[in-house]
Amino acid sequence: MSELSETTGVAVPTLKYYLREGLLHAGERTSPNQARYDESHIDRVRLIRALIDVGGLPIARAAEVVSAIETPGMPLSSRFGIAQRAVTERALPDEVRDGATVDPYGPLPTRTEGETLVAELCAARGWSVHANNPGLAMAARVLDAYATLGQRRLMAVVDAYADAADRVASADLAAVDAAGAETRGDLTAMTDVVIVGTVLGDTLLAGLRRIAQEAESFRRFPLLPPAAGHAATPEQDPTC
Amino acid sequence: MSELSETTGVAVPTLKYYLREGLLHAGERTSPNQARYDESHIDRVRLIRALIDVGGLPIARAAEVVSAIETPGMPLSSRFGIAQRAVTERALPDEVRDGATVDPYGPLPTRTEGETLVAELCAARGWSVHANNPGLAMAARVLDAYATLGQRRLMAVVDAYADAADRVASADLAAVDAAGAETRGDLTAMTDVVIVGTVLGDTLLAGLRRIAQEAESFRRFPLLPPAAGHAATPEQDPTC
Repeated sequence: MSELSETTGVAVPTLKYYLREGLLHAGERTSPNQARYDESHIDRVRLIRALIDVGGLPIARAAEVVSAIETPGMPLSSRFGIAQRAVTERALPDEVRDGATVDPYGPLPTRTEGETLVAELCAARGWSVHANNPGLAMAARVLDAYATLGQRRLMAVVDAYADAADRVASADLAAVDAAGAETRGDLTAMTDVVIVGTVLGDTLLAGLRRIAQEAESFRRFPLLPPAAGHAATPEQDPTC
Repeated sequence: MSELSETTGVAVPTLKYYLREGLLHAGERTSPNQARYDESHIDRVRLIRALIDVGGLPIARAAEVVSAIETPGMPLSSRFGIAQRAVTERALPDEVRDGATVDPYGPLPTRTEGETLVAELCAARGWSVHANNPGLAMAARVLDAYATLGQRRLMAVVDAYADAADRVASADLAAVDAAGAETRGDLTAMTDVVIVGTVLGDTLLAGLRRIAQEAESFRRFPLLPPAAGHAATPEQDPTC
């Protein structure tokens, strides 16, 4: 175990905690005080740390995600669902987190404006998904908030965001396809791509959005920043 | 105050907390026990709730965001920066959160593979941003994690993600432009769009990504899900 700790950079007490909580599978016991850990343990520890440190998941969600890897016969779309839910948790209000979902079959008067807009968007794009897809509630809540906050004009962005989501989802699934082709359809390899790509992909996309926003901001408003008291300008402090 | 509570649906003790912590400006005092609150208070309380409930911000970050609205003369790109940092906090590892940033001028050997890839991406796209843009570290950390996890094939998604980020950023800034045109360049109105759109836009984009992923997953892998033990298929449980 001390070797596993050294290789992965994760402290022994933390590794013991992962074992106790079932995030990490037991090593092969070689004596009462010794166990053998192999590549599969190193891979698992690295996955757990990436989900927590880079993906920002709470440990309980990371546990759900890794347990999904170990469920044989679970269809790929269900694995997507688990990864989606795991990374969605922190962004969702309690009532959604606790299992209440947008009901697309509910009587129309109970639908909020945001829910209606999301349903229309799905219809227009041919997006066919389960009613419990967490994205439905996430998107609807944001659109409702735009209306409540008097920022109705922000609803105009939704088509561009949907284009972006399509582009990203297509790349996500192409990566799953590529993993399948390389491994002759090994479902475990494909699941790894689904899980890592779903959880960490959100962070990647949010990061690139921040870069693109600032770059676009400088392009559109080069003269707006008043110089006084704000030393940094793109000319004085260029980066990449 | 009880009227303000009724209108916004936020409990009186919570409103008092916002007043104490400076998230909400004081009302006009009309007697020792009474104060008058107006539209500006209602708007502010709704903004705070949206940042926390829909945007998922911790309250301290919401306070930073609303204080940015009140700083006159702050350039638009700095306001973007504050909103970016506020919504970024929960996704970033401690060393980035605490102010250490990727140094694009650091000697090349200290750059990680992810940092190099992000710098190359910025150069290829003409993205010019400050070195402390939080997106640089977010994106680099994810790409490094892909390499560590043996998911190098996921790096192939980065161009599609960058396309998506450009599309979203362009819509974000167009909304700011539209607000400026409608209000004859009122910086407060434009700032509101920046803040609400940056914080809540992440949630909108992540939600739409989840919908598009599942839809694309069903399109690409219609035959993969084994039927046994998994009742729901898109045909049996169609939604929008």
